[in-house]
Amino acid sequence: MCDPPRFIIIPPMPNFRLILSYDGTEFHGWQTQPDLRTVQETLESALGAVTRVSPIRVNASGRTDTGVHAIGQVVNTRIETRLDAATLMRAVNANLPEDVVVRSSEVVDDAFDANRHAVRKLYRYVIHDGDVPDLFQRHYAHHSRYRLDAGAMARSARILVGTHDFLCFETEGPNRATSVRTITHLAVNRFGPWIWLDVEADGFLYNMVRAIAGTLMNVGRGFWPEGYTESILASGDRSVAGPTAPAKGLFLMRVVYES
Amino acid sequence: MCDPPRFIIIPPMPNFRLILSYDGTEFHGWQTQPDLRTVQETLESALGAVTRVSPIRVNASGRTDTGVHAIGQVVNTRIETRLDAATLMRAVNANLPEDVVVRSSEVVDDAFDANRHAVRKLYRYVIHDGDVPDLFQRHYAHHSRYRLDAGAMARSARILVGTHDFLCFETEGPNRATSVRTITHLAVNRFGPWIWLDVEADGFLYNMVRAIAGTLMNVGRGFWPEGYTESILASGDRSVAGPTAPAKGLFLMRVVYES
Repeated sequence: MCDPPRFIIIPPMPNFRLILSYDGTEFHGWQTQPDLRTVQETLESALGAVTRVSPIRVNASGRTDTGVHAIGQVVNTRIETRLDAATLMRAVNANLPEDVVVRSSEVVDDAFDANRHAVRKLYRYVIHDGDVPDLFQRHYAHHSRYRLDAGAMARSARILVGTHDFLCFETEGPNRATSVRTITHLAVNRFGPWIWLDVEADGFLYNMVRAIAGTLMNVGRGFWPEGYTESILASGDRSVAGPTAPAKGLFLMRVVYES
Repeated sequence: MCDPPRFIIIPPMPNFRLILSYDGTEFHGWQTQPDLRTVQETLESALGAVTRVSPIRVNASGRTDTGVHAIGQVVNTRIETRLDAATLMRAVNANLPEDVVVRSSEVVDDAFDANRHAVRKLYRYVIHDGDVPDLFQRHYAHHSRYRLDAGAMARSARILVGTHDFLCFETEGPNRATSVRTITHLAVNRFGPWIWLDVEADGFLYNMVRAIAGTLMNVGRGFWPEGYTESILASGDRSVAGPTAPAKGLFLMRVVYES
């Protein structure tokens, strides 16, 4: 009753790099967990359905938490398939639910690793501070009940740019070797009632962007002075910084690799 | 066991005009129906909770169908309350779910009737024809698998402007006295992968905007020549026109009243 022995010629397994967008609202984050709907499991199932290869494992630039969205999450995966990259993308998209989409697909160098080779990531946090919330964006922005001074937030944010120990912005640190990271870009902009916070860094601690957003909102509403971020940073104490802003305003925008 | 007779001084009942936005995705349209979630019932419940007056009935400019959104639906309602218009709005918004919001509230002339006094309405139909659907707008736009020629759609639409019998764009005509309506404005515009169709008229037949959108999309993808709308209009036959485009792309933008 066992399978007969077969001589198998293993074909070369192309290494696909996929860029995907997803609406995090109805996902329990990126990483596969038993009995929960996750982006990773959803993508792996769609790839398996298309290629009839199972199980397929994908390797992402990093996890995203429950409710966090992505515009440009990057994954790589080696799949035994004769499909070219464009055909694979179309077929996978036809098998994905409407809250995930593969935006780009290419076969890359076999050594490419979406996780280990990521050098920087850009996250965006979106806030709306109009009197009336924009209900069509309710899953994609945090509505602030307070009118915010975006200029004060931008000035306050400048202190954080560069290499610092960001322990004060880490929730429940999972014993990482170090909480030192380098923020290469941090900007706060306003257009009408919309304020968005772009943070690019070589790595992020758990909930770091959301803690920065919550802290800068406290500055923006006038609760804290602009320079207070300096004391927060120096404290190394999460309880001194602002609250963790809700996940729904957060987007993983893009992942930067060495070219 | 009956209520004792009481001397009641009936206070003046202010006539409130409310402008509201809603995301139609999870509503079975505007009009109250047994056991279904509707915008009317949701608004009336919130008004009842705030004013402790029950039942409250609101009078809208018109119904919207299941899945259709509104940016500027207008209602009027007479309520026995001492709350001023702004306070009423804030209190109602605190009692509304996050997919409906009152954007404006004022006390108007007692004679104002949101339904009977509406002279024109503007609807917008939103289409996305990019290669990759915008998943963050998936409930608020129709994704066309075909690339559309918005210029051809705009030229084809011009034929419809003015006073015509629009029977060809009416689904299951509910025996209205007449299917003659006047379209005062019809524009098709593109920005990137977004195409939007604005239709302003003195009244709309059932599914009229969605039938016009489906028809113009057939022109836009090159399936029909630009001038074909003239034959469709002349036919008075719904089966000759294009399909009814999905509800999720349709927004009631504003209602115009005689000032």
